[in-house]
Amino acid sequence: MKNFNFDTATRILFGKGKTDEIIPEIIRSGSRVLLAYGGGSIKKTGLYNQVVNLLNNDRIYFVELNGIQPNPRMKSVREGVRLCRENKLDFILAVGGGSVLDCAKAIAAGVFYDGDAWDFMIKKASVEEALPIGTILTLAATGSEMNGNAVISNEETSEKRAMSSALLRPVFSVLDPELTFSVNRWHTAAGVTDIMSHIFELYFTPDTGTLVQDALSESLLRICIECGPVAVEEPENYVARANLLWAGTLALNGLLGAGKSAGDWATHAIEHELSAIYDLTHGAGLAIVFPAWMEYVLNPENSWRFAKLARNVWGIEVTDDMAAARQGIDAAREFFSSIGMPVSLKEVNIDDSQLTEMGKKACVFGPVGLMKELTAEDVTAILRKAL
Amino acid sequence: MKNFNFDTATRILFGKGKTDEIIPEIIRSGSRVLLAYGGGSIKKTGLYNQVVNLLNNDRIYFVELNGIQPNPRMKSVREGVRLCRENKLDFILAVGGGSVLDCAKAIAAGVFYDGDAWDFMIKKASVEEALPIGTILTLAATGSEMNGNAVISNEETSEKRAMSSALLRPVFSVLDPELTFSVNRWHTAAGVTDIMSHIFELYFTPDTGTLVQDALSESLLRICIECGPVAVEEPENYVARANLLWAGTLALNGLLGAGKSAGDWATHAIEHELSAIYDLTHGAGLAIVFPAWMEYVLNPENSWRFAKLARNVWGIEVTDDMAAARQGIDAAREFFSSIGMPVSLKEVNIDDSQLTEMGKKACVFGPVGLMKELTAEDVTAILRKAL
Repeated sequence: MKNFNFDTATRILFGKGKTDEIIPEIIRSGSRVLLAYGGGSIKKTGLYNQVVNLLNNDRIYFVELNGIQPNPRMKSVREGVRLCRENKLDFILAVGGGSVLDCAKAIAAGVFYDGDAWDFMIKKASVEEALPIGTILTLAATGSEMNGNAVISNEETSEKRAMSSALLRPVFSVLDPELTFSVNRWHTAAGVTDIMSHIFELYFTPDTGTLVQDALSESLLRICIECGPVAVEEPENYVARANLLWAGTLALNGLLGAGKSAGDWATHAIEHELSAIYDLTHGAGLAIVFPAWMEYVLNPENSWRFAKLARNVWGIEVTDDMAAARQGIDAAREFFSSIGMPVSLKEVNIDDSQLTEMGKKACVFGPVGLMKELTAEDVTAILRKAL
Repeated sequence: MKNFNFDTATRILFGKGKTDEIIPEIIRSGSRVLLAYGGGSIKKTGLYNQVVNLLNNDRIYFVELNGIQPNPRMKSVREGVRLCRENKLDFILAVGGGSVLDCAKAIAAGVFYDGDAWDFMIKKASVEEALPIGTILTLAATGSEMNGNAVISNEETSEKRAMSSALLRPVFSVLDPELTFSVNRWHTAAGVTDIMSHIFELYFTPDTGTLVQDALSESLLRICIECGPVAVEEPENYVARANLLWAGTLALNGLLGAGKSAGDWATHAIEHELSAIYDLTHGAGLAIVFPAWMEYVLNPENSWRFAKLARNVWGIEVTDDMAAARQGIDAAREFFSSIGMPVSLKEVNIDDSQLTEMGKKACVFGPVGLMKELTAEDVTAILRKAL
């Protein structure tokens, strides 16, 4: 186990009806709010009205930023920065899924930065200060509700890049399982895949002796495998929704990675190129890429780790590590497929025309990955495997 | 799953050599330090010198409170309060195991309270303000390093009582596995038992649908079962010590209980009476009481939960819940015994002369426990089972 520092400052308000408790949490940190959200879904469900009423009842000044899209764009970030500056806003309330939360984070940092906020994504600038953020999460997937990460797309360059800073951790996040009841089958399954992929990224490292981290990771994966199909079939099953929501938050709040290397993250890097070009749902892209990545990097030296996951998560009992690992990969692919996710590029009508381009873009800052350092050619080969 | 709020403000500095990083953490919160510790063990290991040198090098004023005993006494608390007031100290650095940490917490609150700090323990007063606390932990057991709980003994009345407040959560805690290398077999085993007991207390509730919490609890129990015997046999096994240390912290930092009822805690209440009268090591008392408690409260209605633990932690494959539960209880008793813990009162030379008295004292504020509300007579019956 490696040395680590761990703290998770975000206050989690978990459970049905918890949105009602946001006002004291907001006024602890700010008084003039940017209310950021996506399309119309929160208007359909009534959540928008509930939040607006709460703000109005307490006479909290707020300005709206709406229309934040999946794979959130720099256009929304720039618009949010402008709104915050023009209206002297001092708090961002993000209501939605990972895209809305990530957009809010880029805005929170961008307000204090003279240049364009895209600079954070290309490592030209680092976050020195940020507005406080509160979130009301409507989708179990991102983990963004309890960490300092954000992923933003640049529509002009078809790039999708990440930023990270402890300053971007939300001060509070509402996790109400009932707010996820209206998530459809596709996005529920994509969310489950996203959660599992976060755990995979942190699990697949060369670290040894991380028994606690491995055991917690395996537990949360088993929760996804148990609750994912239930949530897909019974969207209003509170137990399944609640456990997925909490698992998704714990998957990426620092707990599973503490004491380990920084995670592999090659699959996310590869998927970001897919969804930057094809605007694919992130979780669907991960369902396609992860099994292909696993098959590509598996070798006799690292097979013990793949086999550990296969045995403890998928219940595979084969004693040979390579054989167990391969069966584990098959099990992952079958599981993703069983909940309605695509597991090949063909299924989402992506052909081989951009594979070389995506390989290059994924490695624009150098090789990606930790289990195996991947070059542009490796990435292209993985995508070819995923055809 | 119940609604819950969750935040864990304590900053964890985990790993070998992390003591070297305490100064910036201290000066963020204070400048005049009460250095609290126990007997001579930290002087033998060199930790005392290391800490004193760090404080001196940065010219941080400090006053020492030493001699804090296992099952920490009000005498030390009162002395600490006096020292803080007389020397206008504004920070407490607790170096040791749970007893030192708990004593530091009672002092931290007592400084701001006009009456005697024992009032917090008997619910005559609640914590309104507290000095910030930092800890350097030398024993994997307590969980006190990342929560707001403290247990104090009153030597005049032979009582042992708990207090709790979010204000008492340490601002930082150093968890260096190497600092636990010198813990002897007995205290290592007692620490493992303490960790497992904390998890049991939180696991055994009537809650349903808490899949994440149950799975994480079971994982941490399996870590204790795997690493406990290794740490007992190979005191300098870093992997075993590190995973026990981190498991012990996560066992009682709020994670396992979030979304559940408050935990059963009857066994701790009963054990506190044992160690208040007989000054028994807390973990040893728990090893004696917990299996007896389990046997006493098990019934066909709650057997599903005992059976779940038996299957997922002890690997018992019996299909009948009552039978599986009973085998799980036997497995717990055998495990405690295998690492050198007593599992009957006879083994620690405690007879039946005080059983009635302890029953009464355990229930002085009313019945204890959640799985089954226990009266004084029930407690006495459990202790009799443990003879």
